[in-house]
Amino acid sequence: MTQSTPLRALYINCSLEKKPADSHTRRLIEHSAAVIRQAGVEVDQVHALEHQIAFGMKPDMTEHGWDRDDWPALFERVMAADILVLGTPIWLGVKSSVCTQVIERLYSSSGEKNEQGQYLYYGKAGGCLVTGNEDGVKACSMEILYALQHIGYSVPPQADAGWIGEAGPGPSYGDPVEGSDVPTGFGNEFTNRNTTFMAWNLIHMARLLRKAGGFPVGGNQGSEWERGTRSGYPLDSDGRPAG
Amino acid sequence: MTQSTPLRALYINCSLEKKPADSHTRRLIEHSAAVIRQAGVEVDQVHALEHQIAFGMKPDMTEHGWDRDDWPALFERVMAADILVLGTPIWLGVKSSVCTQVIERLYSSSGEKNEQGQYLYYGKAGGCLVTGNEDGVKACSMEILYALQHIGYSVPPQADAGWIGEAGPGPSYGDPVEGSDVPTGFGNEFTNRNTTFMAWNLIHMARLLRKAGGFPVGGNQGSEWERGTRSGYPLDSDGRPAG
Amino acid sequence: MTQSTPLRALYINCSLEKKPADSHTRRLIEHSAAVIRQAGVEVDQVHALEHQIAFGMKPDMTEHGWDRDDWPALFERVMAADILVLGTPIWLGVKSSVCTQVIERLYSSSGEKNEQGQYLYYGKAGGCLVTGNEDGVKACSMEILYALQHIGYSVPPQADAGWIGEAGPGPSYGDPVEGSDVPTGFGNEFTNRNTTFMAWNLIHMARLLRKAGGFPVGGNQGSEWERGTRSGYPLDSDGRPAG
Amino acid sequence: MTQSTPLRALYINCSLEKKPADSHTRRLIEHSAAVIRQAGVEVDQVHALEHQIAFGMKPDMTEHGWDRDDWPALFERVMAADILVLGTPIWLGVKSSVCTQVIERLYSSSGEKNEQGQYLYYGKAGGCLVTGNEDGVKACSMEILYALQHIGYSVPPQADAGWIGEAGPGPSYGDPVEGSDVPTGFGNEFTNRNTTFMAWNLIHMARLLRKAGGFPVGGNQGSEWERGTRSGYPLDSDGRPAG
Repeated sequence: MTQSTPLRALYINCSLEKKPADSHTRRLIEHSAAVIRQAGVEVDQVHALEHQIAFGMKPDMTEHGWDRDDWPALFERVMAADILVLGTPIWLGVKSSVCTQVIERLYSSSGEKNEQGQYLYYGKAGGCLVTGNEDGVKACSMEILYALQHIGYSVPPQADAGWIGEAGPGPSYGDPVEGSDVPTGFGNEFTNRNTTFMAWNLIHMARLLRKAGGFPVGGNQGSEWERGTRSGYPLDSDGRPAG
Repeated sequence: MTQSTPLRALYINCSLEKKPADSHTRRLIEHSAAVIRQAGVEVDQVHALEHQIAFGMKPDMTEHGWDRDDWPALFERVMAADILVLGTPIWLGVKSSVCTQVIERLYSSSGEKNEQGQYLYYGKAGGCLVTGNEDGVKACSMEILYALQHIGYSVPPQADAGWIGEAGPGPSYGDPVEGSDVPTGFGNEFTNRNTTFMAWNLIHMARLLRKAGGFPVGGNQGSEWERGTRSGYPLDSDGRPAG
Repeated sequence: MTQSTPLRALYINCSLEKKPADSHTRRLIEHSAAVIRQAGVEVDQVHALEHQIAFGMKPDMTEHGWDRDDWPALFERVMAADILVLGTPIWLGVKSSVCTQVIERLYSSSGEKNEQGQYLYYGKAGGCLVTGNEDGVKACSMEILYALQHIGYSVPPQADAGWIGEAGPGPSYGDPVEGSDVPTGFGNEFTNRNTTFMAWNLIHMARLLRKAGGFPVGGNQGSEWERGTRSGYPLDSDGRPAG
Repeated sequence: MTQSTPLRALYINCSLEKKPADSHTRRLIEHSAAVIRQAGVEVDQVHALEHQIAFGMKPDMTEHGWDRDDWPALFERVMAADILVLGTPIWLGVKSSVCTQVIERLYSSSGEKNEQGQYLYYGKAGGCLVTGNEDGVKACSMEILYALQHIGYSVPPQADAGWIGEAGPGPSYGDPVEGSDVPTGFGNEFTNRNTTFMAWNLIHMARLLRKAGGFPVGGNQGSEWERGTRSGYPLDSDGRPAG
């Protein structure tokens, strides 16, 4: 990717709704994407359940007993993006099974190294958007952001945003409110502000990384480590003080 | 902080051991600090239980009924550092109470804004180190890294490292091994590599941020948002489509 | 179910392996099932990925746009069992997507009430078994046991067991060990003991509940609450002190 | 404890407020305690921060370098109760440091066995109450209920209850509402119902266990396991098929 290519953000909506239009999380994604777009960043969107992603921990599960696996094609779109945002609903306090599966597949494709010998997702920025009528925004974000940084994404400040209502069942984000033209949650300035800050922070981080030509190289290359480079670590590979 | 000041990293060890020497987590911290130091970054270290940190959610709890609170002094050291690493043991699968308390106090001091109107911790990089004989490295890291990014830290790729033994009780990190001069865990190359990568990635991130003069400004200033700047968010403060 | 019907336990293996034989978690399930069986309890087993379970939060997703949904048939087996044990591998520190999906579907079928007006799963005992070469047994168990008690299961003491190896990649539970006839983890007495205690505690709890004719009735019936019974709660439905 | 002693419940409020009256969680505890009390169960209450609980993983930390440790006296009250309920606020999505510390100390006292050779807390029922203006009820409950069952408590159905407001800062549970005589959250029937069901389910479980003379014995005694009793486990202590 050259310096002149515009930045690109990919949103993967991990809703349990088969149809994109039925997803409440999608509405928050649209608000985030609007901020991203007007800043001159290209936006790509995936509704995970419109695809048949196979279960498993290999890059392409058709080589491991599955008839169909749409992941390899989606992975291309992940790699083409500088920014990845996972959107998820909350069920029983945690992220959806679809979101868990998408993370598994991201992980299953993370064995490869880039040209510098770093993990593949180095140089990209990641975040998440969460909605629910049940509580759990932070619990979902903890798992998602942890996974993203673990596989190589950089996480800028305030990389998550979300909306939930008061404890108990009730309308979801974007549901119509009787006697009002403002849908549920749209007037929540905490959610609005966090969604805005998050979008900008992802852009800022992606720009920093783009300008640096990827995540800086040195002391973080699997290929070098395997070759015996210790990069200042005080023990040798036997666990004894290095020379 | 000028461009020429050397980078500075602060490790806060949230061990449940009163004496630093009894902490197993401290041994992993030392390995990480060695990498950081030899890269020319200054290292500051705090053993939390050598201080009397009060409980509560205000910057200085002596103003709220506590006789003593060492947090304000520690907070100065947090602010003086470009990199913050929290170290914690694992108990019942989660981070220590001391670590939880340190995070609460970091949070309690996060209301202020920097000169650009961003949250105070913007422009700093954060990570964590976890040891235990029980499992839970990732669970601890999820909570710690989530908290750090939430209050403004940037989290580079692979910002956590740790060591645990096989399921069940057993020796802790650094405990002597009978008939061997290599302490428990010191020969674990997975831990060694992750600790090295993490140290370097924190340095790289801190350098990027230092070079950029802090986390880039724009769309992420609480002060601006309160003044009505929407930064491209598609809804106004009532939740209606922005003009 | 009459008092004389033998107790029945259902294990659902939420492995990401399509074939049961490839699952490491299955080996731990077998050890648990052996304890259960020899105590005179019937054992039923499901390998989730041998079924096509649809995504979604309704009891039967074929009524909501999915061509096929094997969940309703599996739900019958859940209801026929006094004990439910979910087995899961660990990926990135958390339970599998398949396990998350099974929990979503258990939840999606939990709206109904039993004859006493309690939630459907009242009167059953639940637990979990977790294996991985990565850490996270407790993190997985937290989410699974939370979900089970939330939808009505009783959780006896020490209702989880698992095995993980030392930090880093390595053999999984049951993998052959060179030069030994004992597979990986089989000699881990912590895992062996916990698996045994867990099996017995599930049996004890199920027997207590069977003997009591289900989970005791009183103060816990959705149907009664909806009718206005407050069962000693000090506030009325407006939130004012009850008369 | 004989069959005729009345049941007893202990609430430990792990608020970060030094004064009980300032705690919001306490208000929910009062509602729960009212249900418990009117059912004829004795109620004991502890506000953790009115005590000086030392940090550490031993039953009495004055033997390990601490000048004072109020835990041993609190532990007596834990052992005198059939039911334990931990109350906690939510900060950054997780339970308070005080709650984490109380759990550490419960755990640190769990090494002992009862007369039957079971872990000490066997025969008791446990639950939790959570309030916050930030989300995280379920995340807190997951960690608390996991810890309780792990050390020997039985967890009945729906053993957690809580209140949170809509996403973002706002009034806490029990805060006055302008123009209304109903404090914040008191009219939330989801919270009211769950708190009621939880109180009753804890009572039911404690009664079942009391009637059974404790948690049933068999296959769950550390003392027996150490003596070589395998209780049907299919492997011997070397991991080979049992004879």
